[in-house]
Amino acid sequence: MSQKPVLTLQTNDFPQWYQEVIAKAEMAENGPARGTMIIKPWGYAIWESIQNELDQRIKDTGHSNVYFPLLIPNSFLQKEAKHVEGFSPEVAVVTHGGGNKLGEPLVVRPTSETVIGDAMSRWIQSHRDLPLLLNQWANVVRWEMRPRLFLRTSEFLWQEGHTAHATKEEAVEETLRMHNVYDDLMRKVLAIPTVLGQKTERERFPGADATFTLEGMMRDTKALQMGTSHYLGTNFSEAFQIDFATPENERRLCHTTSWGVSTRVIGGLIMTHGDDYGLRLPPAVAPVQAVVLAIRPETVPESAALTEELKAAGIRAQLDSDTHTPFGRRAVQWELKGVPVRFELGPRDLKQGVVTFVRRDQKHEGQEKQTIPLAGAGQAVVEILPQIHTALYEQALARREANTHNVKEIGEIEGRGFFRAPWSAIGSAGETKLAEKAYSVRCLVHPEGQVPVELTPENDLIAYIAKAY
Amino acid sequence: MSQKPVLTLQTNDFPQWYQEVIAKAEMAENGPARGTMIIKPWGYAIWESIQNELDQRIKDTGHSNVYFPLLIPNSFLQKEAKHVEGFSPEVAVVTHGGGNKLGEPLVVRPTSETVIGDAMSRWIQSHRDLPLLLNQWANVVRWEMRPRLFLRTSEFLWQEGHTAHATKEEAVEETLRMHNVYDDLMRKVLAIPTVLGQKTERERFPGADATFTLEGMMRDTKALQMGTSHYLGTNFSEAFQIDFATPENERRLCHTTSWGVSTRVIGGLIMTHGDDYGLRLPPAVAPVQAVVLAIRPETVPESAALTEELKAAGIRAQLDSDTHTPFGRRAVQWELKGVPVRFELGPRDLKQGVVTFVRRDQKHEGQEKQTIPLAGAGQAVVEILPQIHTALYEQALARREANTHNVKEIGEIEGRGFFRAPWSAIGSAGETKLAEKAYSVRCLVHPEGQVPVELTPENDLIAYIAKAY
Repeated sequence: MSQKPVLTLQTNDFPQWYQEVIAKAEMAENGPARGTMIIKPWGYAIWESIQNELDQRIKDTGHSNVYFPLLIPNSFLQKEAKHVEGFSPEVAVVTHGGGNKLGEPLVVRPTSETVIGDAMSRWIQSHRDLPLLLNQWANVVRWEMRPRLFLRTSEFLWQEGHTAHATKEEAVEETLRMHNVYDDLMRKVLAIPTVLGQKTERERFPGADATFTLEGMMRDTKALQMGTSHYLGTNFSEAFQIDFATPENERRLCHTTSWGVSTRVIGGLIMTHGDDYGLRLPPAVAPVQAVVLAIRPETVPESAALTEELKAAGIRAQLDSDTHTPFGRRAVQWELKGVPVRFELGPRDLKQGVVTFVRRDQKHEGQEKQTIPLAGAGQAVVEILPQIHTALYEQALARREANTHNVKEIGEIEGRGFFRAPWSAIGSAGETKLAEKAYSVRCLVHPEGQVPVELTPENDLIAYIAKAY
Repeated sequence: MSQKPVLTLQTNDFPQWYQEVIAKAEMAENGPARGTMIIKPWGYAIWESIQNELDQRIKDTGHSNVYFPLLIPNSFLQKEAKHVEGFSPEVAVVTHGGGNKLGEPLVVRPTSETVIGDAMSRWIQSHRDLPLLLNQWANVVRWEMRPRLFLRTSEFLWQEGHTAHATKEEAVEETLRMHNVYDDLMRKVLAIPTVLGQKTERERFPGADATFTLEGMMRDTKALQMGTSHYLGTNFSEAFQIDFATPENERRLCHTTSWGVSTRVIGGLIMTHGDDYGLRLPPAVAPVQAVVLAIRPETVPESAALTEELKAAGIRAQLDSDTHTPFGRRAVQWELKGVPVRFELGPRDLKQGVVTFVRRDQKHEGQEKQTIPLAGAGQAVVEILPQIHTALYEQALARREANTHNVKEIGEIEGRGFFRAPWSAIGSAGETKLAEKAYSVRCLVHPEGQVPVELTPENDLIAYIAKAY
């Protein structure tokens, strides 16, 4: 079946493709207030899967979920100098409540280091109260001048972890632990390979001593920051007096961390795996992992039976028995939505005891349609889903490798892709020059790929440079 | 062991008891901005259990989760007359964002009928788009003059369902379906008996044609509204032009509903089951269902083994091996936290192959401590947890029945409890008089207890009257 793409081709206009696929796959749309987003059922179900997977990992590493207030006294944000500088231009301010002008304006949280730091200063008294390992799932608001669905919205959803420790070593260890938890999520759940590294001073979180990041390469070869983990040193402890008594009864400042992953990763998911025919969802986050299309009314009963068989095998399966709608249009819609596996059951298949089986990840590799025996088709999917996950990951990794270039100096940085350059050849001055060409240093890594814990000048680090979202 | 209560006695000062138990069980505390709340790990874990149980029921009844923006243009709230009247005095208003004064102020959502109604008007075109069954988990802000943790906080967490239907019949059916889902949650998860009925016109949700409510009786015999479901008629459809084409291609207005349960139910949970020794948690929402206290260091290994046995049996179990802290203080703390089952394992128990077993729900009925064989103790808990649930429910029901009085007229309404009076003897005028005495009509029911779908004068209804939170 030759098929006309229903989307603008990625190579023609990637941002336009992105907008269209979000609309046509019914993921999200703009809210009425500028920069806000309505997440529709298909998009929200993906977020729920990400939440479940990440929440389990956060709990498994010893953190407790909590909930802190949305509205924060303006004075709280003023307490840490770099933090106020970083966030003041972005905040939404509540000036009126209950019909009256407020004595002190309240800020809609752009992040919660301040309000949680204030509580930590009360909750932590002794070394026995440490480490304190908290996390919350929440919405935050940061005013966006150039909003874009999922990637930059004035309000977004995320988890933010906040922890306090007795020593720098423990806090850095925690920061790197969560950095690795995020990497696990990216690889095993989202099938997204990322470059793990540390941000430069210029790109650091406001108030952090070190920021670790995971940078994914999108299909247009631009970078997207998928998650960050911050070692905050004693900056917030000083600002909010978060201290503890040692066993020897000396007062010491805590070392704190924070780390977050947001609905932005859904943008990364779309732009890492999506193709000219729509989304391609990794099975772990696909709201429907396998759809069964009854081609004709007379094949609905067997299609329903196969759907039940799939469900019994633990697969999120859905029957499409809408035989009044032309078959081609239905197939296109499920492709747009990125469902990993599609069954098509027609009368001829049924007579032969087979079913047509389509892998979304193989579309237009010429091998996506197969005919397999109807008996046992449900079990076959159980084995194929992990293969689809791996295939998506490998495709993304191969694309990144093909588009990563080793360079020696700024002059060579031109055009598409990631550029690996010696950090010693770039430096802060180089970053400023790169910014003029719309490039930025995404992160610094050791030459062999490890994450550098310290940014000492002796370390001969590699800078990853790219245009970014 | 004779034990001095660590809390103010409920009979001495119930509001004081409430504050103390929330603080000492580490459930929540006040946030820095007036009326806001910090939900601590123990409180939030309870909320997570409630969310999981309710979310499953919402999905099982065909609803999809979505997420709509926190910030709503002020003009949206103005579109439905009763809605604006009900919510205007309560809203928090964002006037500045991104460093600038906004052209139109944004309201922090007090509820989302308006912004969701606006989307429904775009999403619904044809009868084929109906019913539209949405739900979201979100935070909302309503300015509170007399805040109280969980019961009335300026920000609270909830789910809000929003649905649109072709006919009044279907919309009313949906409203009652969710009313019953809430009842199922109250009975089977929270072990709270409630009176199900319809609100009077005076007590209705702003913009609703009918509001159905579940009213629980707290231990001080005051009423608490545990959840509400609203049939909104065509009020929001008219305001937001939510209409559809019938099969005959006529335009018709949709009939919409909304329904919500919030973190307020945690307040209800505390005040329904808690006693002078602390919380008493129904097993379904207890973050820890069984705790194992090692009395002495030498019983830690067997205590740990029992904890693992409990976990293997699917029970949320925790080991308390903190033998440096006096045993009595630890027992008191677990009682405060309301853990349903407590094991105490001392050297003498161990020698005899037994373990002491304490049911929190039987505290001070003189039968709470038993000695049972250590072997198979884990499995015993599996059977006992449902009994604890039932016991809590039955106690609450018996207390409500003992404190419910049938009366004929307003003059008889005095003192504690629920009063059942013929609605024909009260009426709107009676409601005003009752309000002067701080009583309100909590809901109207049929004499046999069914929920009245219509409030026609012919219906000989019973009014439930009480003081309320």
